[in-house]
Amino acid sequence: MNVPIKSTLDPEQQHITGEALRATVIDLIDLSLIAKQAHWNVLGRNFRSVHLALDELVTAAREFTDDAAERATSIGVSPDGRAATVAKEAAGLAFPDGWQQDTDVIEAIVKNLSTVIVRLRERIEVTEKADPVSQDLLITIAARLEQLHWMWQAQLSSA
Amino acid sequence: MNVPIKSTLDPEQQHITGEALRATVIDLIDLSLIAKQAHWNVLGRNFRSVHLALDELVTAAREFTDDAAERATSIGVSPDGRAATVAKEAAGLAFPDGWQQDTDVIEAIVKNLSTVIVRLRERIEVTEKADPVSQDLLITIAARLEQLHWMWQAQLSSA
Amino acid sequence: MNVPIKSTLDPEQQHITGEALRATVIDLIDLSLIAKQAHWNVLGRNFRSVHLALDELVTAAREFTDDAAERATSIGVSPDGRAATVAKEAAGLAFPDGWQQDTDVIEAIVKNLSTVIVRLRERIEVTEKADPVSQDLLITIAARLEQLHWMWQAQLSSA
Amino acid sequence: MNVPIKSTLDPEQQHITGEALRATVIDLIDLSLIAKQAHWNVLGRNFRSVHLALDELVTAAREFTDDAAERATSIGVSPDGRAATVAKEAAGLAFPDGWQQDTDVIEAIVKNLSTVIVRLRERIEVTEKADPVSQDLLITIAARLEQLHWMWQAQLSSA
Amino acid sequence: MNVPIKSTLDPEQQHITGEALRATVIDLIDLSLIAKQAHWNVLGRNFRSVHLALDELVTAAREFTDDAAERATSIGVSPDGRAATVAKEAAGLAFPDGWQQDTDVIEAIVKNLSTVIVRLRERIEVTEKADPVSQDLLITIAARLEQLHWMWQAQLSSA
Amino acid sequence: MNVPIKSTLDPEQQHITGEALRATVIDLIDLSLIAKQAHWNVLGRNFRSVHLALDELVTAAREFTDDAAERATSIGVSPDGRAATVAKEAAGLAFPDGWQQDTDVIEAIVKNLSTVIVRLRERIEVTEKADPVSQDLLITIAARLEQLHWMWQAQLSSA
Amino acid sequence: MNVPIKSTLDPEQQHITGEALRATVIDLIDLSLIAKQAHWNVLGRNFRSVHLALDELVTAAREFTDDAAERATSIGVSPDGRAATVAKEAAGLAFPDGWQQDTDVIEAIVKNLSTVIVRLRERIEVTEKADPVSQDLLITIAARLEQLHWMWQAQLSSA
Amino acid sequence: MNVPIKSTLDPEQQHITGEALRATVIDLIDLSLIAKQAHWNVLGRNFRSVHLALDELVTAAREFTDDAAERATSIGVSPDGRAATVAKEAAGLAFPDGWQQDTDVIEAIVKNLSTVIVRLRERIEVTEKADPVSQDLLITIAARLEQLHWMWQAQLSSA
Amino acid sequence: MNVPIKSTLDPEQQHITGEALRATVIDLIDLSLIAKQAHWNVLGRNFRSVHLALDELVTAAREFTDDAAERATSIGVSPDGRAATVAKEAAGLAFPDGWQQDTDVIEAIVKNLSTVIVRLRERIEVTEKADPVSQDLLITIAARLEQLHWMWQAQLSSA
Amino acid sequence: MNVPIKSTLDPEQQHITGEALRATVIDLIDLSLIAKQAHWNVLGRNFRSVHLALDELVTAAREFTDDAAERATSIGVSPDGRAATVAKEAAGLAFPDGWQQDTDVIEAIVKNLSTVIVRLRERIEVTEKADPVSQDLLITIAARLEQLHWMWQAQLSSA
Amino acid sequence: MNVPIKSTLDPEQQHITGEALRATVIDLIDLSLIAKQAHWNVLGRNFRSVHLALDELVTAAREFTDDAAERATSIGVSPDGRAATVAKEAAGLAFPDGWQQDTDVIEAIVKNLSTVIVRLRERIEVTEKADPVSQDLLITIAARLEQLHWMWQAQLSSA
Amino acid sequence: MNVPIKSTLDPEQQHITGEALRATVIDLIDLSLIAKQAHWNVLGRNFRSVHLALDELVTAAREFTDDAAERATSIGVSPDGRAATVAKEAAGLAFPDGWQQDTDVIEAIVKNLSTVIVRLRERIEVTEKADPVSQDLLITIAARLEQLHWMWQAQLSSA
Repeated sequence: MNVPIKSTLDPEQQHITGEALRATVIDLIDLSLIAKQAHWNVLGRNFRSVHLALDELVTAAREFTDDAAERATSIGVSPDGRAATVAKEAAGLAFPDGWQQDTDVIEAIVKNLSTVIVRLRERIEVTEKADPVSQDLLITIAARLEQLHWMWQAQLSSA
Repeated sequence: MNVPIKSTLDPEQQHITGEALRATVIDLIDLSLIAKQAHWNVLGRNFRSVHLALDELVTAAREFTDDAAERATSIGVSPDGRAATVAKEAAGLAFPDGWQQDTDVIEAIVKNLSTVIVRLRERIEVTEKADPVSQDLLITIAARLEQLHWMWQAQLSSA
Repeated sequence: MNVPIKSTLDPEQQHITGEALRATVIDLIDLSLIAKQAHWNVLGRNFRSVHLALDELVTAAREFTDDAAERATSIGVSPDGRAATVAKEAAGLAFPDGWQQDTDVIEAIVKNLSTVIVRLRERIEVTEKADPVSQDLLITIAARLEQLHWMWQAQLSSA
Repeated sequence: MNVPIKSTLDPEQQHITGEALRATVIDLIDLSLIAKQAHWNVLGRNFRSVHLALDELVTAAREFTDDAAERATSIGVSPDGRAATVAKEAAGLAFPDGWQQDTDVIEAIVKNLSTVIVRLRERIEVTEKADPVSQDLLITIAARLEQLHWMWQAQLSSA
Repeated sequence: MNVPIKSTLDPEQQHITGEALRATVIDLIDLSLIAKQAHWNVLGRNFRSVHLALDELVTAAREFTDDAAERATSIGVSPDGRAATVAKEAAGLAFPDGWQQDTDVIEAIVKNLSTVIVRLRERIEVTEKADPVSQDLLITIAARLEQLHWMWQAQLSSA
Repeated sequence: MNVPIKSTLDPEQQHITGEALRATVIDLIDLSLIAKQAHWNVLGRNFRSVHLALDELVTAAREFTDDAAERATSIGVSPDGRAATVAKEAAGLAFPDGWQQDTDVIEAIVKNLSTVIVRLRERIEVTEKADPVSQDLLITIAARLEQLHWMWQAQLSSA
Repeated sequence: MNVPIKSTLDPEQQHITGEALRATVIDLIDLSLIAKQAHWNVLGRNFRSVHLALDELVTAAREFTDDAAERATSIGVSPDGRAATVAKEAAGLAFPDGWQQDTDVIEAIVKNLSTVIVRLRERIEVTEKADPVSQDLLITIAARLEQLHWMWQAQLSSA
Repeated sequence: MNVPIKSTLDPEQQHITGEALRATVIDLIDLSLIAKQAHWNVLGRNFRSVHLALDELVTAAREFTDDAAERATSIGVSPDGRAATVAKEAAGLAFPDGWQQDTDVIEAIVKNLSTVIVRLRERIEVTEKADPVSQDLLITIAARLEQLHWMWQAQLSSA
Repeated sequence: MNVPIKSTLDPEQQHITGEALRATVIDLIDLSLIAKQAHWNVLGRNFRSVHLALDELVTAAREFTDDAAERATSIGVSPDGRAATVAKEAAGLAFPDGWQQDTDVIEAIVKNLSTVIVRLRERIEVTEKADPVSQDLLITIAARLEQLHWMWQAQLSSA
Repeated sequence: MNVPIKSTLDPEQQHITGEALRATVIDLIDLSLIAKQAHWNVLGRNFRSVHLALDELVTAAREFTDDAAERATSIGVSPDGRAATVAKEAAGLAFPDGWQQDTDVIEAIVKNLSTVIVRLRERIEVTEKADPVSQDLLITIAARLEQLHWMWQAQLSSA
Repeated sequence: MNVPIKSTLDPEQQHITGEALRATVIDLIDLSLIAKQAHWNVLGRNFRSVHLALDELVTAAREFTDDAAERATSIGVSPDGRAATVAKEAAGLAFPDGWQQDTDVIEAIVKNLSTVIVRLRERIEVTEKADPVSQDLLITIAARLEQLHWMWQAQLSSA
Repeated sequence: MNVPIKSTLDPEQQHITGEALRATVIDLIDLSLIAKQAHWNVLGRNFRSVHLALDELVTAAREFTDDAAERATSIGVSPDGRAATVAKEAAGLAFPDGWQQDTDVIEAIVKNLSTVIVRLRERIEVTEKADPVSQDLLITIAARLEQLHWMWQAQLSSA
């Protein structure tokens, strides 16, 4: 593959960081599609709260998708966010078909968020040496998703 | 499947309109993912114009996705916009892997827009009797996509 | 009655469309007063969600009232939205006196919305030939009220 | 009737203040419906000025309605703003049917405003001892309505 | 003439719709120039109301001009809005030279609006089959111009 | 203590009003800290509604704190809003340590609001003679807190 | 003098309140002209702070002028804010000619504010019975001017 | 008099320009006070139009006052805008006491504007050599006041 | 022709300045119609840049049209901006029919701008003595059009 | 204590990070209360500058308080920001009672900021291993407080 | 040198005006760098006032730099604002190295502003015949810098 | 040199970090001046895109200049951003004199950005131990400049 965008990273740094960013793009697109799916199909007494909170999650996921993809291009790596790629590679994230009860939606979102956060934590580690600039972005993403993770958990917890 | 949201449409009207809206949701999600993919991977002298115009297309596609999906729910039909569904059902839309020349991007966008518009025209016809309210939404979507279609074509045409 | 505002509609078209719009004005004023009544008198665990959602309904109902009334004037028909007229003619809509439990409020709103939508559907049919411009407005109103109808139902449904 | 919202007022204070606020809610809803009715049906050389000025009156009346109704709830009294209640209890306010000449509209608005203001003045007196917090709200409403009263009168007066 | 912009309409649909849109563009440009002319040359006691209302009309006419012209391009038809074309083809619209009394201005605007609306009504009919998307735009334009038509008439009428 | 800011109040008026305002500052700071504490530690099905409503309470409490403190300075009295002073003097307000269930949070907020309102009512009485300008501010604070008091109660009440 | 604007106040109430409001209009216009004069002519190390603070005072004085004058018209009393009237009747307010040192400006502003506040306090007393609505406005003005009085004093005081 | 602000103008240029600016400050303050006086005291069928148009004039006059006064300080000349100075020196401008008919208000405003414009034209001539920077400001003021002069005249003229 | 708006210019100054402004109004309307025509009909690789830049030109031309026309009225001269007048008198400006290549559009815009600027320069000279206030407006228009002239030329030039 | 919010940190990482965040919450609340206290009680020639700058500090402190507290919840640790806790644990921060001279205020703020920054530096070190996401937040807080520290110092320093 | 941008000025006019504009660009860039330098390095009791006022000066200098440079390009002259050119040609402007006392900063800014203004005055004279459009821009720049010159002087002056 | 601003860094940390920040200030000022120079002198078919993109670069460079300079002051180091210092020390950055072809501009910007980024990467390494707070700022700057670097490269690349 021809590499039309130059970077100051050496090939190994570029490879490690590029893989971390490409995988993050895919996770975040999947997360945003799942959140929209839930936004439309949720039912129950807490419909309005959950419906609105899901759009906040969509907004966060979409902005971070763009940040991660443009960070990949900035180091000369082409991101891939097409539907087929997402469907094939975003293993581990899932949401059932059809109408869903609000409590089930909350549990599914907590679980999907948890999966994405664990992977982000691993990528934060592997990029520390390879590219502290990209690592800084992944830390920002993790901070916001962990905040949302607390808020979704808080709806299920009891003191 | 239990149908928790009631509608004043009869079962046949609901079925016809529901299919038209569900398919529109899938086309528009795919279109928005393709436009983002192009937004990141475009190269060439017209990079800036194309990069910005693609984000306008993303915005339009995302807003219409939500409108179509919530119209489906309004008539008691559950929409499905998950990655696997989109990857499987959005036949006909496509965008190649990796970095792309700006002229190739323009051609690909024109072709994808054309595919989506032809399908929308068919759905406008079939929903006229079934549900004029949903038809009105499909007309609004077509009007905007046809305007964008002209603008993308204009970049390739000569007088 | 003297008719000071001229219209390009013939007398029969004007009569049919005028009746549809005048009746819509009355339904929407009644709906907005009922929603405000509920906004003030709701009690219970979902107080805040319901209290806020009712104000969105008020806003929609008020804007559509103005649109329908000014469309009536545009075709030379005087609208009547005075309290006594609304109290007398808006048969079918109702809301009980005093403090109300949140679940009762949701059921009452779903039922009132349903009544208004059924009537709007009938008026969309009768105005198709008489005046497509007015029909287009009634379609817009129906689209939004049916979306709200789904959202209020969703709070009572289970998957 | 069960009283689900507690207040620090004693029963007599609560009764006096509650009646004053409930009556104010009804007057203000009627005033807002009359102003809208006039907004649609006014004719004549000063159409545009009167049409716009009526919407300022509608805005004021609607905001004060909400303030008065929520003040009632704050002291544990349920407000009643349904169409039938308004039609029955808002004695003294009136506006004729059909298209109206602009000068007639101005006179009718001045007269309705005057009726509402006289009643507000009486309620300001009776709530002074019962609840200075509610009295303060009634003073604010009176101040704004008296300003509008001057502006509407000014259109009919000569120096 | 070479047709550089493709459309999914067949040639006849394209011809019918294209003519309707091209003629609408010319009418609306002429209307906007007449409204500006009146905005500058009006005299009389109602100067300020008329002066301001004319600018609202200019704004509406300009926005609809752009919508109609870009709809023409969207179906592959080149619009023509040059001064000579407008002067030659906008038959029926007119406004006299020099300073004008406010009552004369109102009458002239009512008459010009009426002419434009009658033509729009005809084009709504002929485009129904040819292109429902363009028809929808013409309906939107008619709805707004008919609302303005009422407001300008209301200044001359008596109850 | 030297008194560097002069006032037109006599010493007794200044003393009475100053004490009322100083105590109000302390109550409101405590209320804002308690609301923030609850904002962070709430758990349960209504997490989102309660979390958001608490921030509205924080905003109100902070703005009134500033108003009350600057009113104290305006009459020559130095306010004291330091943590130790608040901890020592704001007797009666309280919120437990650690994570809290949403229903417990609502009850605690209702109780704290009730305590603050009763004290405000007393201060409204004692300042009536001493300084009507300060009294007016205390009435404004009471009106808003009583409105919030209703809204928090409404979440616990049943019709 | 003919009294074209009616009021619900009796002649004596109207006379007392009218005098209080007319005198307030004159004081506030004079204060705003003095503050502007100081804004332009101040010199010294604190030029920027004083220059900006004076414009805040001008803004407050101008807004209250309008409020007081329109309150006068609301009770049927014609206000007089012409230069000659202000020059003749605003006894007690003064500011020297030409460039002024910043410390002198501060002292002059404190003194002028003090004069205006003392008079407002007297008018608050005399209007209590005559018209509580006007009194409420005078209290609002006093509250803001006393806050500014503190801020200007604070610049000269030492602890 | 000591001259604390230095200028690059020679003494004669400074004297000529300073006098022109000081006189403009006085005219504009008087104009703004007259326009406010009219804003409060106008009566008649065109009350609303005239009332609003007068506030536009006030805004223009106040902004130009500040521009002219700060231009004077910029060339080292102290402006004087105190009530007594305005009352003594703004010869030629006038407005009667008490309530005024709208037509009389329009005539008075036209006449006062005309007086101010004639003087501005003379000052534009004398400052051309002395200070083109100040001349440019006076031209800007004249352009706006002549525009307003036309608008006020237009209300009295007939074609 | 009767001259209902008075001016302080003498008849010769008024005639010279009036002609300059009337001709400017016509040139600017023609320029705005040409720019819109190009906005719709442009084709080619730089479609988007040219399409957007043309709307900036339209905006500038429209605002200056209004400024010039209202300056004419301010000196008592009636402007004429009707389509027939523009078509007849705006000699020298031109744009071809139908779809146009982007490079041809740029050349045509540069040429039309150049024609308008040359004429403005002549009018700046002739109005210097006749009316410096109008000259100042023509200078402002020339400055902005010359800036746009550079930007359009820059697209065709090579270093 | 039950731990209702799960985290991906191990118990030791969670303990270390939790302590750092809880202590930061307390320091920042104390800092914001001290800054408000100073905002109200400052006297002297630089009153306005200091009064305004203190509100910037309050804003910063409040936003960071919320960020730190919600970061604690994100890792499953309950924050404690109640008045008694702040009063007991925020050792080292202090501000005297009553009115204060502006120079004394500046010195006190510099000293309190310095104390908070030193502690933040220690927490940045200890969290580096434990949780880089939380460390990133502490770095952001330190960067802003050190900038404010310079600005407050700059007011006391001499070159 | 090839001249790719055409102008309607003759070569001599173009030369004179071009030199005036190029020199102004250099002076203004130097002024903006000096103001930023001072913004960072100022110390002393008036730190905050001076720090903020310097940013207003930076903003003004940057906007005028762009205006002057784009005016040069508009008449076909290439501006040069590179660091080396500024360092070489902006003779007369200066600011010392390192931390600076606030009073020294004020004196340095007054002196630099004075130098720039004297040169602008000369360029206003020489461009009067050569290009009144460019002269108008230089007058605008001088007006604002002379206003700032007064404000900076005022901080050092005594009455 | 006296060091008036204290820091908690030790002298060596302060020296390393100070040098890194001072050099960054100089690079960024030079970059902003070069980008402005290109903004004015660019010619060619992509004029508009490049002209606009250069202003985005100017904005980024100016904001980061301020951030870096104020970070230097925050650790007690005086920044130096005067023209002579920039001209002497910003070795490696360059842009040619006079009008420039758009392709040459793009190449020059890519090269200058590349030089600045390489140096920033080195400073990120050396400040990691010395001051993580400053390092965090340098990482933020690098992330944004690398994103812009990609965008400018993309205009020259082919897939």
